[in-house]
Amino acid sequence: MLSKSQINLLKSLQHKKFRREAGLFLVEGQKSIVEFANSPYQIETIYHIPAFDSKVLKLSQKINLCEISVTDLERISSLKTPQDAIAQVRIPSWPALDRKALNGRFSLVLDGIQDPGNMGTIIRIADWFGINNIICSEDTVDVYNPKVIQATMGSLARVKIYYTDLPVLLGLVNLPVFGALLSGDNIYNTDFGDEGLILMGNEGNGIRPETEKMVTRAVTIPRIGGAESLNVAIATALFCSEISRKALK
Amino acid sequence: MLSKSQINLLKSLQHKKFRREAGLFLVEGQKSIVEFANSPYQIETIYHIPAFDSKVLKLSQKINLCEISVTDLERISSLKTPQDAIAQVRIPSWPALDRKALNGRFSLVLDGIQDPGNMGTIIRIADWFGINNIICSEDTVDVYNPKVIQATMGSLARVKIYYTDLPVLLGLVNLPVFGALLSGDNIYNTDFGDEGLILMGNEGNGIRPETEKMVTRAVTIPRIGGAESLNVAIATALFCSEISRKALK
Repeated sequence: MLSKSQINLLKSLQHKKFRREAGLFLVEGQKSIVEFANSPYQIETIYHIPAFDSKVLKLSQKINLCEISVTDLERISSLKTPQDAIAQVRIPSWPALDRKALNGRFSLVLDGIQDPGNMGTIIRIADWFGINNIICSEDTVDVYNPKVIQATMGSLARVKIYYTDLPVLLGLVNLPVFGALLSGDNIYNTDFGDEGLILMGNEGNGIRPETEKMVTRAVTIPRIGGAESLNVAIATALFCSEISRKALK
Repeated sequence: MLSKSQINLLKSLQHKKFRREAGLFLVEGQKSIVEFANSPYQIETIYHIPAFDSKVLKLSQKINLCEISVTDLERISSLKTPQDAIAQVRIPSWPALDRKALNGRFSLVLDGIQDPGNMGTIIRIADWFGINNIICSEDTVDVYNPKVIQATMGSLARVKIYYTDLPVLLGLVNLPVFGALLSGDNIYNTDFGDEGLILMGNEGNGIRPETEKMVTRAVTIPRIGGAESLNVAIATALFCSEISRKALK
């Protein structure tokens, strides 16, 4: 059984401030936990209900297992319908972004994405297309937000996320910056070359003017029908597909 | 002020059974209401709070406007943070699907999509790429579900949705059926031609075996990285992008 203070600590991890203070975040559900267990992330404890068989996790690292009641699981879960297990994972302190590591490949840059579902979906898309780095403006939604973790379906274990001052960073790198903008070159006629940054803007407001100044090529997804816009995760997927076509053919 | 029975009727429209019985569904928020007002859908009443200026709707059809309190709006809304207005719209009785209307173009076919957010996003994607018809298996989530309506961002006003027995329908049409499957031809090397059906399966289980039998060409989105799968709305967007490339270049 969990003590009241343990429950309070675990519940507090639903908020960014307390996650950063404790250096911890939560991962819910067997599938996602397996992905984190087989990654550089360090799982501290897996809280699970009696019905849960920890063998399914096929853990390679030694992890503290803690059996709890269904009631306690419901208390600490951020889900309406909690799964069987929740892992308490340490927030890693990655080395700072090495700008040279961005050369010779494509990376995503997110300017103020707010919706956790979009953020998680974008991480999953990046993982599908083999993009290892996502660089976010400092006001982009926190990647350790439980709804982001949920939507990534474990992909966060393979994609590195950095938060930084975007205009400063974009001024320092010597790479093409492809900005998803409304009046740019047709994405289907754009030669993306072999390296660069794909810059996506906020759901409602797009790319900020200060960041847009650093765009070296504006690119647009043309439209046939009547929809006013595409969801930002969908647009990101279409960009990732285009930059990967040559490699995937 | 709304009477108790009016509130109960409007609240009941959050459930499929009552929507079908009443022949009504709800559309929330100014932007979406404008899209429906300028479409073949028939809006019966717009319930709005005093702060709402109905002129922003730029209504061309004559619609009954009903001012209600914020409390009443909160009662009838399906959103955590309700917007300023909710429209009560009649479920249309479209003419039955005309199979000949599927010739010479692409349509989407959905086999058991369950998540309302995915369904709404797929409708928005179809609208962006000028796809006018979506044909769903009978167990696909109801298109008039408030969460679907919310996610379509008004696109439902331009895309027709049909529910039918998919294996029967696919046996009757004389069109290529491109199925999104795990082991098919590389999507980037597939010539989709000028017409056909794009068949997408359920989030967890994919395309049902009975439906898969009707696929004339299995198509796969190849992967570079480690993600186990792509979200079905993302996969749909990549298919729509590929079938539209020629037209959009």
